[in-house]
Amino acid sequence: MTAYEIISKKRDGFELNAEEISFMINGYAEGQIPDYQMSAWLMAVFLRGMNAQETMAVTKNMLYSGEVVNLEKIPGLKVDKHSTGGVGDKVSIILAPVVAAAGVPVPMISGRGLGHTGGTLDKLESIPGFRVDYSIAEYTDKISRLGTCLIGQTPDICPADKKMYALRDVTATIQSIPLITGSIMSKKLAEGIDALVLDVKTGRGAFMQNYEDSVALAKQLISVGEQFGKPTAAYITNMDEPLGNTVGNWLEIVECIDGLQGKGPEDLMEVTHQLCGAMIYLGKKAETIEEGIRISKEMISSGKAWQKFLEIVAEQNGDVDMVQHPQKYPQAQFSAEVKAKQNGYVKSIHSLEVGLTAVTLGAGRQKADDIIDPKAGIVLHKKAGSSVKEGEILMTVYTDKEEVLTSAVERLGRAVTYTGRQPHVQPLILEFLDKNSL
Amino acid sequence: MTAYEIISKKRDGFELNAEEISFMINGYAEGQIPDYQMSAWLMAVFLRGMNAQETMAVTKNMLYSGEVVNLEKIPGLKVDKHSTGGVGDKVSIILAPVVAAAGVPVPMISGRGLGHTGGTLDKLESIPGFRVDYSIAEYTDKISRLGTCLIGQTPDICPADKKMYALRDVTATIQSIPLITGSIMSKKLAEGIDALVLDVKTGRGAFMQNYEDSVALAKQLISVGEQFGKPTAAYITNMDEPLGNTVGNWLEIVECIDGLQGKGPEDLMEVTHQLCGAMIYLGKKAETIEEGIRISKEMISSGKAWQKFLEIVAEQNGDVDMVQHPQKYPQAQFSAEVKAKQNGYVKSIHSLEVGLTAVTLGAGRQKADDIIDPKAGIVLHKKAGSSVKEGEILMTVYTDKEEVLTSAVERLGRAVTYTGRQPHVQPLILEFLDKNSL
Repeated sequence: MTAYEIISKKRDGFELNAEEISFMINGYAEGQIPDYQMSAWLMAVFLRGMNAQETMAVTKNMLYSGEVVNLEKIPGLKVDKHSTGGVGDKVSIILAPVVAAAGVPVPMISGRGLGHTGGTLDKLESIPGFRVDYSIAEYTDKISRLGTCLIGQTPDICPADKKMYALRDVTATIQSIPLITGSIMSKKLAEGIDALVLDVKTGRGAFMQNYEDSVALAKQLISVGEQFGKPTAAYITNMDEPLGNTVGNWLEIVECIDGLQGKGPEDLMEVTHQLCGAMIYLGKKAETIEEGIRISKEMISSGKAWQKFLEIVAEQNGDVDMVQHPQKYPQAQFSAEVKAKQNGYVKSIHSLEVGLTAVTLGAGRQKADDIIDPKAGIVLHKKAGSSVKEGEILMTVYTDKEEVLTSAVERLGRAVTYTGRQPHVQPLILEFLDKNSL
Repeated sequence: MTAYEIISKKRDGFELNAEEISFMINGYAEGQIPDYQMSAWLMAVFLRGMNAQETMAVTKNMLYSGEVVNLEKIPGLKVDKHSTGGVGDKVSIILAPVVAAAGVPVPMISGRGLGHTGGTLDKLESIPGFRVDYSIAEYTDKISRLGTCLIGQTPDICPADKKMYALRDVTATIQSIPLITGSIMSKKLAEGIDALVLDVKTGRGAFMQNYEDSVALAKQLISVGEQFGKPTAAYITNMDEPLGNTVGNWLEIVECIDGLQGKGPEDLMEVTHQLCGAMIYLGKKAETIEEGIRISKEMISSGKAWQKFLEIVAEQNGDVDMVQHPQKYPQAQFSAEVKAKQNGYVKSIHSLEVGLTAVTLGAGRQKADDIIDPKAGIVLHKKAGSSVKEGEILMTVYTDKEEVLTSAVERLGRAVTYTGRQPHVQPLILEFLDKNSL
């Protein structure tokens, strides 16, 4: 068996067997297969695709390239949620304390911002002192005591995926359904989960902009999860406009604080409760998803989720006083307003444009070693469907980089479309899928 | 413009413009684009294809990455021939002296053996002392005096192709029509030609086994040649069984000596005269290809081609006495015979199997740094269509490696099929194409 033969076989559209996939992925992780052969193979996989068996083999090889966390000693079914990423998607930060407060342990290993989409770790680190770099032993201990812990990927988790992801990122081979599936599921399975809820974003600000691709990805993710014996459910949710009213790290934390205190925006809370409900159901603390949603709402209204969040912040070395008094946080040096160009209704706000503009303000990275400004970002005062008057404030932008202010305001202005009559706003939750959908 | 964007564009099936192709090829040749990005792009090109404009841009960038030989001072139209390679394909070695003797200068930069196909340079180097490593100045001088010179690629000729070819060879991206076209035509155009005749092999021992692919490749090659203002013609020839009666370096030289002395096997001489005829016609020393073929045959029968060959051997430091008395050449230590398994007719001899077996005998390289044994190889006493009796000798194998003898004989035995009645043998020359075929 040689890498050359395996590349040729996939190039010609044939199915690879488990040994061949293992040969490529382990050989690459161990440095026996060079980057240039791996990237040719990745492009062949991208263009020729993989079936369910091959995708399963990819996932297994990525998963077992590193440590698989064992949380069996912690009572209860451990349930996590994964989002394919969107603009303003801060759901995890409200969801983890809600679900943990409901008695379902949430092991959560998250990522950083990628391109125009933000990352949970970057958002959490905008809380002064908040640490995400705990060891697996510390992570396990915190989950056993608090019911959740939010950390970043350690070097021991799925090293093959880490190395392959870095190569895919520079060879235009990210957006391949089998490779995304392997990457997501290997990391989630390595966390120590018993069940998983997925938020597969679709639309202009999503990783998968096409609806059919989003559904296909959701099905592959569910298929792999179920084959590992982990009940897996997925929601396809709309990412045409940003989720919630804020984009930018600390701005989003403030919105999460509002959400945990019962003052969150409707769209954000709708997605959050739906995902929490499914997690509480899969964690067997509710008979149905609907009951799970009721419990989720109760965790907010009772203040239990907010208390859990404060515990998490304290446990992970964050500044509890700051999250209790977010008005103490330093302000960005510069701000400006985006104003409505006409009377009528907001028809749409292009989430990809909003995400990319936030990056220019300092809220994301343009290069891997850029430092994020936690204060930078965008507050949306209007969303699709809002009625507006010409000159009314649509958004406020915050940055320390005065030189980008004008272009950001102009770009955001162009990201908004208008209509004369009340527009039909697409539903946020488009589809639910589980093993019965396969 | 970034490599990432260009990879993505080709991955998604879009046409690349000349600037983008130049960015990739020159960037790679100059070391600014790493192997792993180039190999992802090559696989995308392999699977998505390229149109005529893109193929032209690939060729141009490869060609102008290095020196382009100027032979304008040599009178007459310089014409070369290129073969896509086959088993037992020794045509160049007879053709160069024939065409040069007919007054058409033949600038010939050849390659080494690749996989199961032999290489002109390896064959020539089996002549004791024969040198193929002359500089471009020496090459030009020899052509001006003798009418031809047969050398290997210098580092100055098409360095971008050389670097890309080495990468394609390990990433399963060789057999792409636009990339093959760029690779072949850039090297031929760099030689200083005015016109070109192509021998595109098809069938089991060919680089392109599929007939339609062979025709498509021929058309691309012609299209590029004509766009450079170089009249280009192509023959599609059959490579289902080996060409001529010998496979192996010195064995093939002996067959060329026979051919130049009017004793060559029919199939080999048919292809040789056809290609020579087209070259003499394109070199304007004949009014038609048919007249060119008559001249080609006359060069053999008159002894002029044989005299030219002796001049070439002498000029390129080869042992003239040895080619005049080939029986003096050392013999392989071991030989064995492949015998007919039944009475009847030989239906086919699988040329790929013969080529691969010859490599195991020592006639080719299994690794890039293997040393070729010039004595090793196979003599075919029967060809497709021959009547045979059970036990009659079909082939003789020669090697210094006793340990491979038995398996070689068995493998060659399996490469032969039989039939009870006189089989229909496919014509050797299947199609002629030129600019009127596009």
